[in-house]
Amino acid sequence: MQACGLVVEYNPFHNGHAYHIQEARKASDADCIIAVMSGDFLQRGEPAIMDKFYRAKAALLSGVDIVIELPFAFAVQSSDLFAKGAIHTLHEIGVSSICFGSESGNASDFTNSYEYLKGSEALYRTTLKAELAKGFSFPEASRHAYQEIGLSEDSMDLTKPNNILGYSYVKTILKNEYKIEPLTIKRTNSGYHDEAITGSIASATSIRKALNEHNTITNQVAHAIPTSTIEQLTEYKSESGQWHTWEHYFDLLQYRVMTMTPGELANIHGVEEGLEHRIKKTAMHARSFHEWVEAVKTKRYTWTRLQRIFVFILANVRKEEIAPLVSNHSVPYVRILGLTKNGQAYLNKAKKQMNVPLVSKLSRQDNPLLQLEERASNAYYSILTPAIRHKLKKQELMPPLLINK
Amino acid sequence: MQACGLVVEYNPFHNGHAYHIQEARKASDADCIIAVMSGDFLQRGEPAIMDKFYRAKAALLSGVDIVIELPFAFAVQSSDLFAKGAIHTLHEIGVSSICFGSESGNASDFTNSYEYLKGSEALYRTTLKAELAKGFSFPEASRHAYQEIGLSEDSMDLTKPNNILGYSYVKTILKNEYKIEPLTIKRTNSGYHDEAITGSIASATSIRKALNEHNTITNQVAHAIPTSTIEQLTEYKSESGQWHTWEHYFDLLQYRVMTMTPGELANIHGVEEGLEHRIKKTAMHARSFHEWVEAVKTKRYTWTRLQRIFVFILANVRKEEIAPLVSNHSVPYVRILGLTKNGQAYLNKAKKQMNVPLVSKLSRQDNPLLQLEERASNAYYSILTPAIRHKLKKQELMPPLLINK
Repeated sequence: MQACGLVVEYNPFHNGHAYHIQEARKASDADCIIAVMSGDFLQRGEPAIMDKFYRAKAALLSGVDIVIELPFAFAVQSSDLFAKGAIHTLHEIGVSSICFGSESGNASDFTNSYEYLKGSEALYRTTLKAELAKGFSFPEASRHAYQEIGLSEDSMDLTKPNNILGYSYVKTILKNEYKIEPLTIKRTNSGYHDEAITGSIASATSIRKALNEHNTITNQVAHAIPTSTIEQLTEYKSESGQWHTWEHYFDLLQYRVMTMTPGELANIHGVEEGLEHRIKKTAMHARSFHEWVEAVKTKRYTWTRLQRIFVFILANVRKEEIAPLVSNHSVPYVRILGLTKNGQAYLNKAKKQMNVPLVSKLSRQDNPLLQLEERASNAYYSILTPAIRHKLKKQELMPPLLINK
Repeated sequence: MQACGLVVEYNPFHNGHAYHIQEARKASDADCIIAVMSGDFLQRGEPAIMDKFYRAKAALLSGVDIVIELPFAFAVQSSDLFAKGAIHTLHEIGVSSICFGSESGNASDFTNSYEYLKGSEALYRTTLKAELAKGFSFPEASRHAYQEIGLSEDSMDLTKPNNILGYSYVKTILKNEYKIEPLTIKRTNSGYHDEAITGSIASATSIRKALNEHNTITNQVAHAIPTSTIEQLTEYKSESGQWHTWEHYFDLLQYRVMTMTPGELANIHGVEEGLEHRIKKTAMHARSFHEWVEAVKTKRYTWTRLQRIFVFILANVRKEEIAPLVSNHSVPYVRILGLTKNGQAYLNKAKKQMNVPLVSKLSRQDNPLLQLEERASNAYYSILTPAIRHKLKKQELMPPLLINK
């Protein structure tokens, strides 16, 4: 039995994701589709619109066979670490290929770039460092560094977000000599119509925007997502009372920062170069999360980087916590959120080959690796009333969701 | 010019307090009444019904000449430290007497008890320690220890709350050989813990209960407080939207505890003997602050002690922070909240004799001593909307309120 791996966030699962799965099956010829998905906090430092269990279920009912949670320590990071966590996980679970969307759409672009850049790594790093020191943000500095080592616009545009991610996946595969074939499909534009999928394709960002603006699933949105997502979104809202946004967390975050010492804040993962003073100073006057980030932001920091930092503040992630979790040449565990019968059949074979623990539920153990997940989960649910929070957190203690497919 | 010192909380200032001031003037024959008042968090670990500036103003308009804030590090403590902070402060400001209410009503009771107990201090301590080890709460253990050293019911009942405080005041005065005459008046019929309001003198506890129950100043309450308090209570509610209770802080506190590691919680001032596990465990299921304290409480801990601990959690007070502030033989500074013209005249002379800095406003300095005050203030105001919080916090940066009296 062969599996193809996808790296996803599903915030929320939409028609474009269904298309991706369809194409992945075709390109890989795999029997089983395995998605590694960010948990309750996402790569760009946002709280997910609904929790990971509901998002996983929407995916399992729409073509994914196994959903694995990308550990928090890898999920809320810039592309390199994010990719590492995802690829190590997919390697552990024994996929024979991965399939990712990219602006390039051409797998050989990525492998060729790797070969080319491999030799220029040192020069890339030196230039990157120098550009960062000049005060450029990471994406800008990276772009300058790529230019420096001669990567032209022809070869592959490594400033495009999905190309960047795709490149990080390929780099991790090749560096570790994993037997995983990288496959890529060209990303569609919003509005592209494919006969095989009823409805339209819209970006997750635009879907979330519409959901939060109207506080209901409008017709437009309903056309862009499968039934499973409509159901899960509706059920989550009915259970918890809301779809999560950063603004929901503003009060807690402001309280937290205003009762931290500068020293504590400086010890939060990601807080460097005196940023703690800026964050504390602006805390008092901010009237919303958006205002706050705007007040903190300088040329040196992207919005995304600041959002991630606020996730770490909210979930109380200290500097010394992340390194032990991400510095090995693997992930510390593989956490299954849910699977279909087909996925279960695959897993029963694959788990015999695994080198790290297979975690199916968070039990009341004092495993330090899982402590951070617990705290992130607590932070995510902190805006709900105690009764609802208690109910939703129970999902952490249940075995993985099993779908009869 | 002579001054008489009072140790108060004024939560809120009521007719009993006005009576106290009147009697203090008579007994001391002083020109100036100086009150050392707990700030936004009180000795029994409660958030004040309205902030310290409003409470101070009510007092200044009803007979007090100077209101000094008892530093947070001393205010939210059991009687010994609380008393130390208060007496050192009053000594610094040069009072020639103090006047406190007590169940005994007889100053010589206190000085005699001191002489008697001075010799038995070691035996008292040993017995106290043994009783605490048996699992008795502090008040019970203290009572057993007093019995052990032969303090009979005749001499003075050292289990009565005001006697305990009064005794701590006298002990501090005599130990340090301060030239301060202790005067005491017998407390009127409302017992310290009485819940029902009777006549025009009622306990602060019963007044707060009525205020929070009806969310307005009822006639009954209005008869028990002076006009200045009616005005201040009304104005504060109108400005901030509420009178503060512990339940207002529940969400923030729950969020805080659920995103702390056990190690962090164990490092909070006052958290001992594994209490951190109990606090974390009960956090999830509690539906209110009251429920939470009930769930944590055992025979070993009084309600008061637990409330104090929750103050320290809320304001993020670490173990290493309190000791440097309270272990010297004085207070680190004297912070004036407000004064009348009469008080100002007194202060102009008295300040020449002071040995510690006179702080009139919290400026943007990095004085570590004041950092804790800032954080406590932030914690107190954290339940208000950003705009209102900003407005009220501005009071911290203003010179002391000057009343034309």
